Amino acid sequence: MQEDRILRSALKSKVISAEESASFFKDGMVVGASGFTRGGDTKVVLKELAKRAQKEPLKIQLFTGASLGHGTDADLADANALIKRLPFQVDAILRKHINAEDLLFVDQHLGETSELLINGDLPKIDIAVIEATQILEDGSIIPTTSVGNNVAFMDMADKVIIEINTAIPLEIRGFHDIFQQGKAPHKKIIPITASDTRIGTESIPLDPEKIIGIVFHDITDMTGDIVPPDENTAAIASHILDFLGNEVKKGRLTKSLLPLQCGIGKVANAVMSGFLKGDFENLTMYSEVLQDSTFELIDAGKMDFASATSMTVSKGCYDKFMNNLETYRKNVVFRPQNISNAAEVIRRLGVIGINTALEVDLYGNVNSTHVGGTKMMNGIGGSGDFARNAYMSIFVTSSTAKDNKISSVVPMVAHHDHTEHDVDVLVTEKGLADLRGLAPIERVPIIINNCVHEDYKDEFLDYFNRAKAKGGQTPHLLDEVYKWHTRFNETGSMKA
Amino acid sequence: MQEDRILRSALKSKVISAEESASFFKDGMVVGASGFTRGGDTKVVLKELAKRAQKEPLKIQLFTGASLGHGTDADLADANALIKRLPFQVDAILRKHINAEDLLFVDQHLGETSELLINGDLPKIDIAVIEATQILEDGSIIPTTSVGNNVAFMDMADKVIIEINTAIPLEIRGFHDIFQQGKAPHKKIIPITASDTRIGTESIPLDPEKIIGIVFHDITDMTGDIVPPDENTAAIASHILDFLGNEVKKGRLTKSLLPLQCGIGKVANAVMSGFLKGDFENLTMYSEVLQDSTFELIDAGKMDFASATSMTVSKGCYDKFMNNLETYRKNVVFRPQNISNAAEVIRRLGVIGINTALEVDLYGNVNSTHVGGTKMMNGIGGSGDFARNAYMSIFVTSSTAKDNKISSVVPMVAHHDHTEHDVDVLVTEKGLADLRGLAPIERVPIIINNCVHEDYKDEFLDYFNRAKAKGGQTPHLLDEVYKWHTRFNETGSMKA
Ligand SMILES: CC(C)(COP(=O)(O)OP(=O)(O)OC[C@H]1O[C@@H](n2cnc3c(N)ncnc32)[C@H](O)[C@@H]1OP(=O)(O)O)[C@@H](O)C(=O)NCCC(=O)NCCS
Ligand SMILES: CC(C)(COP(=O)(O)OP(=O)(O)OC[C@H]1O[C@@H](n2cnc3c(N)ncnc32)[C@H](O)[C@@H]1OP(=O)(O)O)[C@@H](O)C(=O)NCCC(=O)NCCS
Repeated sequence: MQEDRILRSALKSKVISAEESASFFKDGMVVGASGFTRGGDTKVVLKELAKRAQKEPLKIQLFTGASLGHGTDADLADANALIKRLPFQVDAILRKHINAEDLLFVDQHLGETSELLINGDLPKIDIAVIEATQILEDGSIIPTTSVGNNVAFMDMADKVIIEINTAIPLEIRGFHDIFQQGKAPHKKIIPITASDTRIGTESIPLDPEKIIGIVFHDITDMTGDIVPPDENTAAIASHILDFLGNEVKKGRLTKSLLPLQCGIGKVANAVMSGFLKGDFENLTMYSEVLQDSTFELIDAGKMDFASATSMTVSKGCYDKFMNNLETYRKNVVFRPQNISNAAEVIRRLGVIGINTALEVDLYGNVNSTHVGGTKMMNGIGGSGDFARNAYMSIFVTSSTAKDNKISSVVPMVAHHDHTEHDVDVLVTEKGLADLRGLAPIERVPIIINNCVHEDYKDEFLDYFNRAKAKGGQTPHLLDEVYKWHTRFNETGSMKA
Repeated sequence: MQEDRILRSALKSKVISAEESASFFKDGMVVGASGFTRGGDTKVVLKELAKRAQKEPLKIQLFTGASLGHGTDADLADANALIKRLPFQVDAILRKHINAEDLLFVDQHLGETSELLINGDLPKIDIAVIEATQILEDGSIIPTTSVGNNVAFMDMADKVIIEINTAIPLEIRGFHDIFQQGKAPHKKIIPITASDTRIGTESIPLDPEKIIGIVFHDITDMTGDIVPPDENTAAIASHILDFLGNEVKKGRLTKSLLPLQCGIGKVANAVMSGFLKGDFENLTMYSEVLQDSTFELIDAGKMDFASATSMTVSKGCYDKFMNNLETYRKNVVFRPQNISNAAEVIRRLGVIGINTALEVDLYGNVNSTHVGGTKMMNGIGGSGDFARNAYMSIFVTSSTAKDNKISSVVPMVAHHDHTEHDVDVLVTEKGLADLRGLAPIERVPIIINNCVHEDYKDEFLDYFNRAKAKGGQTPHLLDEVYKWHTRFNETGSMKA
C-alpha cells in the first residue's frame, strides 16, 4: 500500500485483495463500474468476478460509462456472468454473445444513463466499482483517465469498492471537474459557457461508510495503435477540412471554428490530425473521448483546450501525457459524461460534431449500430447526444465496405439511429454532401452525386426515380427498400 | 387606425392597406411569417400575396413558427405561390401539394428553426410579416397569441411588415417573455429553472427603420371545436392517468408531477382534461401549445402555471381568455419557440412529454409524420424536441386506424421520427407499455401484450418469433418487415 493514496486513515483497514473483493458480489446484483472507452476502467475486481462466475452461478447487471479495456467485457461474457449490460461496448466476444441473445444489452445515449439512474428508471446500484488515484481526507476520490458515470454510480450505490491505480501519478489531481445537476424539478443550470469553464470540484464526493473494499493495482489503461490514415480516411478528412475552410471563407465560422467533437476511430483521428496542416488556430474540443490527435494539436500550438470525459490513446501518447501532466494541466479537463454529453452545453457552445456511420441512406438517415439492421456493432454511444444538439452534425463513412460488396449508402438504412433532421453533412471518400436546409427530395441527387460509389450509382438512381414517380414527401418503394440488404444476405454482395 | 396601437408616432405614416402590402413581395423572396398552430398568425398580408400569385408568377419561400390558420397555407399552395415551406403545416390542401411534389417542404424540429436561421443554414429573410397588438415607443412590438419564431424573423429580416390585430386587447402586454440567446460561441445560458421563471422582456426589439408597412385588421385567431373524448381517447387518457398515479404511489413523482408537455389533438386534450378528476395538484406545463384543457385546469385550481409559445383553443375558451386577461396573467406565459422547445430547459425541468404517433413498432420506434412511409401528414413539430429531452417521453396512438384495416403497431415503422431511445412509454386504448430500461427483445412481448389490437396479435407474434430465431440485438426479417404496409397498398387492409 502506498500511504499517500489513502488520506483518510480510517479507510486503510479496508484494503483487500482483488480476489477477496469478488466475494462481495451476489447473484442478481446490479454493478456500476468505472471505465469509458478503455480510459479509467476497473481492471482487477471485475476480472476476479468473472473468474468466480466461471466456477459458480453468478450473474450481474453491469452498467459502465462506456466500453471496458483489458478484455474484461469478454471475460464476463464468456463466463456467462452478465444478465444485462449497458450502455455501450466494443468487445468482439461480448458482441457475439449479445447477438446470440445470451444476455440483454441496452444501447443508450451516453449522456442519459446517469439521469435514468437518478430518476429511478434503472434499478438501483448494489455495488459500484471505481478506479481512483487517491482517496482524500473527506472520503472523496480523485478519478483517473475517465470520469464517465462514476459520480452517479457512487451516489446511487449502496456499497463501493475502490480500485486504486498506483500507475497513475498523484498529479492527475486537478484534471477533473466534478459537478452534479441534481434531480428534477430542482436540477441546476450547467454553467459552462466555453470548453474550459470549470464549474465543480476536483474530486468525487463519497460517503466513506459506503466503502467496503479498497484494492490496489498498478495496471495502466489498455492503449491502442494509431492506425495511419489510408486512402479513404485521408480523402474523408480532406473533404471535411476543405469544407470547414470554405465555411471560414464565407464568414460563417472563424479560424478557431467552434468546439469540436470527434468520435473515436481512424477517420476521426485522421480528420483531427488534418488540422495540424490547415491554417486553423486556437481550436478547442468539447468532446467525449480524447485521442492522440488532440495531444498532437495541443503540442503543435493549434489547440488551446480540450474537454472530454475520457482519453484513449496509443502507448506513446499515454506516456507523454503522464510524464507531462504539468504541461497539459492548462489544456485538458475530464468531466462526468452527462456533462461532456449534455444537450444543454453542446447546444450552447455550438459544437461541431463528427461521427462515424455504418450506413447512411439517400435522405440522410444514419445507422451507427446495427450491421444488416439486426446485429449490434457497438452502440449509439454519444453520437446522438452530439448529432442532435450540435451546431453542425457531420457523419462520415466509406462509400462501401467489404471490398465494395456492401454499399454504405443504401435506399433506406436498415436501422435508424439518427434521422435526417440530425444530419447536416454527409461525407464519404467520394465527396461531401451539405444537406442543411434541404427538403428530402433535394438531398437525394446531392448524396448520389457526391457520396455514392460508382458501382451503385445507376441502381440508386433507378430506385429513386421510380420511387419519386409515385410521389410523397419522402419517396420510397417499401417492397424493395431493403432489396440490397436481402441480396447481400443471399448472394454475399449488394450488387445486382 | 387606433392611435394607441402605434406609440412611436413616426411610424404612423407607414400604415397601408393589406392590398398595398402585397406589392412589396418579389418572386423568389424569403418570407418569415408569424403564426404557430393557428395562434397569432398573419391574417391578411399573405392572403393578399396569394391573390397576387393567382394572377402573376410570384413564388416565395415561406418560413413560419408552425401551421397557419384561416386557410392561408391552402390559398398560397393553390396559387402555386410556394417554392419552399418550413417548418410545419397541418393544412389538407397544402399537404396534397407537398405530396404531389409541387413544392419543397422541410420538416424541422420546431425548436431548431431559429437557430438554423441565425447560423446562416437557411437563406436570409427578405421580409418578415408579424402580427402584433402594439408598437411601442422604442419600435419594439407586443406579440399576440403566439411568439413562435418572430424574434428570429424580425432580427434576421431586411424588412418587416406588421399586422396590428385590434381584436386583441392591449392588456395582452405582459403575457410574453422575450429572450435572445445570441450566436455560438457566445450563446447565453437560458436561466429558466421553473415553468414560471421570467427571463426577458415583454416586447420584441425591432429596428423601426426595417418597418416598410403596417396593416390593421381585427380578425381573431381561427378557433377549433373541442372534440369530446371517444372510447379510444378516454381509454388512452385513463391508462396514462393510472400510470402517473402509480408513479406517485411509488414515490418517483409527487402529486404535482413534473412540468407537462402535451401535443395537440383530441387524445392530448383528453389526457389533460383527465387531471381535473385525479388528485393531482399544483400542476404546471412547459409546453408548446396550450389547448382548452389548460384553461380548464387553471380555472379548477388544479394547475398553477403554463408556459408555451402559442395557444389554440375553442371559441368559448378564446373569449374567456381575452375577457379575463387579468385573471390569467399570473398563470400563463408565451415564449419564443426556441425557448419553449429548448433542449436545455426541457431537460433541466424534467418535462413529462405526451405526443401522438401515427404508428409505432415492436421495439418502440415512432413514426409521427409519414402515412405509409412516404406521404407527409403534418411534420415532426416539437415532438422531437420534447421526446429526446423529456424526463419521461410518452407516445400515444389508437391501436388501429381506418376501421381496423391498419394496425398502428407494426413490425417496423415505415418512417422513423423517434427512435426507441426516445420512447419511454407507449400507450394505445388497449393498454400501456412501460419500456424504461428495457433491451429491445424485452420490449416486444410487453408491446404485443399491452398495445396491439387482437386482430393483429397472432401475426405479430409469428413475425417476432421467426425473427428472434435468427438472432441479433434487434431481430427483424428485412425481406418482410414492410409486408403489412405493402399488403395494405395492394388489398386495402393490413390483415392477412
Ligand atoms: C460506426 C462504427 C462501428 C464505425 O467503426 P470504425 O471502426 O470507424 O469503421 P470501420 O469502417 O472500420 O467499420 C467497422 C466494421 O464494420 C464494417 N462495416 C462498415 N460499414 C458496413 C456496412 N454498411 N454494413 C456492414 N458492415 C459494415 C466494416 O467492414 C468493419 O468490419 P470489420 O470489423 O469486420 O473489419 C463506430 O464508429 C461506432 O461504433 N459508432 C457508434 C458510436 C459513436 O458514434 N460514438 C461516437 C461518440 S465517441
Ligand atoms: C400524429 C398525428 C398526425 C396524429 O394526429 P391526430 O389528429 O391526433 O390523430 P388521428 O388518430 O385523428 O389521425 C389522423 C389521421 O391519420 C390516420 N392514421 C392514423 N394512424 C394511421 C396509420 N398508422 N397509418 C395511416 N393513417 C393513419 C387517421 O385515420 C386519420 O386520418 P383522417 O384524417 O383521414 O381521419 C399528429 O399528432 C401529428 O401531426 N403529430 C406530429 C407533430 C407533433 O407531435 N406535435 C406535438 C408537439 S405540438
